[in-house]
Amino acid sequence: MIYADNAATTRPSRAALDAMLPLLEEGYGNASSLYTLGQKAREHLENARAQVAKALNAQPNEIYFTSGGSEADTQALFTAARLGEKQGKKHIISTKFEHHAILHALDALEKQGFAVTLLDVHENGLVTAEQVAQAIRPDTCLVTIMTANNEIGTIQPIAAIGAVCKEKGVLFHTDAVQAVGHIPVDVKAWQVDFLSLSGHKFHGPKGVGVLFARRGLVLANIIFGGAQERGRRPGTENVPAICGMAAALTEAVEHMDADRARVTALRDRLIAGIAKIPHSGLNGDAVQRLPGNVNFCFEGIEGESLLLLLDDKGICASSGSACTSGSLDPSHVLLAIGRPHEVAHGSLRLTLDASMTESDIDTIIAAVTEVVGYLRGISPVWRDLQEGKRSYVIQ
Amino acid sequence: MIYADNAATTRPSRAALDAMLPLLEEGYGNASSLYTLGQKAREHLENARAQVAKALNAQPNEIYFTSGGSEADTQALFTAARLGEKQGKKHIISTKFEHHAILHALDALEKQGFAVTLLDVHENGLVTAEQVAQAIRPDTCLVTIMTANNEIGTIQPIAAIGAVCKEKGVLFHTDAVQAVGHIPVDVKAWQVDFLSLSGHKFHGPKGVGVLFARRGLVLANIIFGGAQERGRRPGTENVPAICGMAAALTEAVEHMDADRARVTALRDRLIAGIAKIPHSGLNGDAVQRLPGNVNFCFEGIEGESLLLLLDDKGICASSGSACTSGSLDPSHVLLAIGRPHEVAHGSLRLTLDASMTESDIDTIIAAVTEVVGYLRGISPVWRDLQEGKRSYVIQ
Repeated sequence: MIYADNAATTRPSRAALDAMLPLLEEGYGNASSLYTLGQKAREHLENARAQVAKALNAQPNEIYFTSGGSEADTQALFTAARLGEKQGKKHIISTKFEHHAILHALDALEKQGFAVTLLDVHENGLVTAEQVAQAIRPDTCLVTIMTANNEIGTIQPIAAIGAVCKEKGVLFHTDAVQAVGHIPVDVKAWQVDFLSLSGHKFHGPKGVGVLFARRGLVLANIIFGGAQERGRRPGTENVPAICGMAAALTEAVEHMDADRARVTALRDRLIAGIAKIPHSGLNGDAVQRLPGNVNFCFEGIEGESLLLLLDDKGICASSGSACTSGSLDPSHVLLAIGRPHEVAHGSLRLTLDASMTESDIDTIIAAVTEVVGYLRGISPVWRDLQEGKRSYVIQ
Repeated sequence: MIYADNAATTRPSRAALDAMLPLLEEGYGNASSLYTLGQKAREHLENARAQVAKALNAQPNEIYFTSGGSEADTQALFTAARLGEKQGKKHIISTKFEHHAILHALDALEKQGFAVTLLDVHENGLVTAEQVAQAIRPDTCLVTIMTANNEIGTIQPIAAIGAVCKEKGVLFHTDAVQAVGHIPVDVKAWQVDFLSLSGHKFHGPKGVGVLFARRGLVLANIIFGGAQERGRRPGTENVPAICGMAAALTEAVEHMDADRARVTALRDRLIAGIAKIPHSGLNGDAVQRLPGNVNFCFEGIEGESLLLLLDDKGICASSGSACTSGSLDPSHVLLAIGRPHEVAHGSLRLTLDASMTESDIDTIIAAVTEVVGYLRGISPVWRDLQEGKRSYVIQ
């Protein structure tokens, strides 16, 4: 099996498992308890908090553990909305190609009377700080823009956007779920007020994430209960998962330079190989993108069939994000960058990690080439294109 | 070490670990993905859903996986509030000794204009269906009453309360976090509309829980994002933890009759032993209580010192709930059953499980007796009581 869907989820690393398993099996104490077993769990918890803070260039008391990225995104947006409301500011700026955790939370805030501006995304999958500056109004309380897109992997100019927000006195949140552990992240240099991440996107476990909130920003609860996480995120602390995540993140940061170079080379080899397929097109900027992300559209192809045939060849890949699978709508991300419906349906996302080899990449290239050829052979759309009854969108 | 704080959290069972570990290490596929690795994860997820449904006498499509009990409680209350609001019904009934997940969510709903009636709790730690019937108003949209109290373990007449709610057409939620896996739970017989549970309270892992919602009740999101859990609880499915929880629950239900008999006998032995300490009093009904729960107040004692000295003897116990540790306030539960502040501060909760032996119980009795004696020896309050300068609350 070649696992090339690391943007959907990753295999927990040995370091993550080694941190988790003893805590699952023996170190099960409740971290809010007074006795030694509980206090040991508390120590692990606070060490993990310090590790995560260090990886983001944050302070430990700015780190709140959540159940994952969607929860962190929701809580960041509702917190900023509550803070904005108090000042009579009810306008939020985001982009058309955010994750649904952001877009659906914004839908909910619109029902509460907030106005939302969704910035257009350029054809290369990028927004600019200038767009943000132009969209900010006197009543803007929040800008929320993802660090890297989950489908096409394009990396946004977060530091430049942070500087604009800082200058204008507007809170800034970034959904960094796809970025953390893969590219350098620095909440101070980026001047972000809130940042979300998810453990299972960088070889940590599922069910755990982080909301960074700059010191002084009091989070609004979206879950109610006990005094855990200073009362802002109740529920018995999931110490095994938190420590697994922290170990995975520490390892990812330590190996980042080497892994990025290696994975970027694999990515570019894969892009070059797939680009040889006629009438295929890379989605998103070729340079300003995550090391492991490859996303192509193919004329005359259904994404779902492509995935099933690749699975038969032992290759795990996706079309759009796992969060939207089951939906018949084409990817809102591909539509946002201007792909028309008919090719947005035929996309393929391959997301790599450092465990992969050049031989894996060559196997993927051969398989994709073969499967695209086969599917085009039975595709009435492709026949129409070939016969000139339809026009190619991708030359 | 003798671990007697099973109401705070439990040690994951071998069955739970055996279900989780292969999924953590190898079965890491995203359950919303199309390829085989993802579809295998999906099968595990749906098997777990069926297992949990069976344990509650529910249907699988009535089970929503959450990150734990606090999240499930919050989502149940906000869902019922949104449904009530639509009908112009903004009154909620609960009790004075609910978990803070309920009480704090109710505080938030009060700020949204809901009226909340908190029923008094009788001295024995019970509320009655008659109290509920009397409190229901034409604008009541929800009754939320815990199945068993987390501090004193008293078991409420849920089926009788469910019948009252059904008759009056009011939604009924029960926080069954302390009950599930320990006593029989039957959502049909109890006529509950919503029920919350938490995996780590019955030897499952932390960070995972369930919200049961009766078919036809559309949950209101408190977390926004992808299409997981039919869009009602987004976030990549935490399949390892969910399967660990389901395995632990299945095992708990299979062994329930034998374990209940055994643990109840241990509990009663412990109650009898501690009751021999002069001026000590059991909190909560001696019969209508969870098999493993023992909770005492002692005259002239600070709870925190008691816990630290028991910890020195290798006994893990608690005073109140772990969720409120760090708080200097006396337990709201003990105040609700009429304990005055001075003895509510000196409480001890010991919560047992089936792995314990009579010898463990006798060790605990000896340790508690010794530690209470020692602390009273250095307590000015106890001296005043002995010298008649203060009156005993507990005879």
